[in-house]
Amino acid sequence: MMDLYGHDISGNTYKAKLLMSILGVEYNYIQLDVMNKAHKKVDYLKLNPRGEFPVLVDGDEVIWDSQAILIYLARQYQPGNSQYDWYPDNAAEMAQISQWLMVANNEIFHSLAKARVIVKLGFEGDLAACQEKGQQLLQWLNEHLEDNDWLANNKLSIADISCYPYVALCEEGGLDLKPYENIQQWFKRIAAIKNYVTMPGLF
Amino acid sequence: MMDLYGHDISGNTYKAKLLMSILGVEYNYIQLDVMNKAHKKVDYLKLNPRGEFPVLVDGDEVIWDSQAILIYLARQYQPGNSQYDWYPDNAAEMAQISQWLMVANNEIFHSLAKARVIVKLGFEGDLAACQEKGQQLLQWLNEHLEDNDWLANNKLSIADISCYPYVALCEEGGLDLKPYENIQQWFKRIAAIKNYVTMPGLF
Repeated sequence: MMDLYGHDISGNTYKAKLLMSILGVEYNYIQLDVMNKAHKKVDYLKLNPRGEFPVLVDGDEVIWDSQAILIYLARQYQPGNSQYDWYPDNAAEMAQISQWLMVANNEIFHSLAKARVIVKLGFEGDLAACQEKGQQLLQWLNEHLEDNDWLANNKLSIADISCYPYVALCEEGGLDLKPYENIQQWFKRIAAIKNYVTMPGLF
Repeated sequence: MMDLYGHDISGNTYKAKLLMSILGVEYNYIQLDVMNKAHKKVDYLKLNPRGEFPVLVDGDEVIWDSQAILIYLARQYQPGNSQYDWYPDNAAEMAQISQWLMVANNEIFHSLAKARVIVKLGFEGDLAACQEKGQQLLQWLNEHLEDNDWLANNKLSIADISCYPYVALCEEGGLDLKPYENIQQWFKRIAAIKNYVTMPGLF
């Protein structure tokens, strides 16, 4: 059985849990003692040299990036009869999805997710700058979702799972989602997926 | 024929050019008038809402993230008789490669690449912090390359193409590559690939 190392407060951990729930994959969850810096200890750094979480361990395979975990799960554990194609073979579709994974990894992480840990956990950082970048990002997403039900290829994919958590949690970082009607409708579509699970801070 | 919008000084543009050269793909190159903010003008923002470069246009397909461009090129234009498999079908190999794409997109971009534009182009930013994060990154890469000829799966892939440019250009950001022998050997292996091309600042 797979092991997932992470923390309940982490949107990156949650995105792995969410996809595993939807895919119907069983796994063993190890909650890291983050307060005691379990993610900076030598044994854990052997699994994940970045010293972050989550990490997915599947036999000999160790995946230490949350977006890469989604790719792995989609390619390895998508049921043959799935109504969705989470990370399809087609080059153009794969590239369209991948660029949203990069947005999750870069823009979302360095604006919405960072504002949240500054407000919620007292991390150091420039809150105003993170919030301003976050606003621009929300506006872009909201415009994109005006004509698109889903982020990439107008089909549900790991692009949506990847970007969803820190966008949906952004009010914990002092952002306001009220003006972004299309984003809210997108949340509802995601929450309606069979076997959707939630996390603290989300509806 | 494909269009690539970019700039000669950009490592992200270069990584697309490098892979297209190795793959033997023809393309039309459009050098953006970056000094006059061509990448922030309305028409360009329709191609790339991020307002960055490069962008690849292939018929109806528009790819606006450099890592996603590598994925697209690998999946769409890898010759059937290629001795390399740039982004293979296998879930575990794909995930291993993808996590290095995330390192290029996140850690490398926010340390080595940022230090370079601060030193070389006078961009604003915390140079000391970028250089310190850059040092840690170089040390991690150097350790990883002690036992690995290539970043992922011990095989050449787009992981190497993705991470290479800003690591190889890092002395332009005030970093010193001399202590990192394994990284230098990795550079030599990349430069030895058939149809390798260089860019200003690289050997």
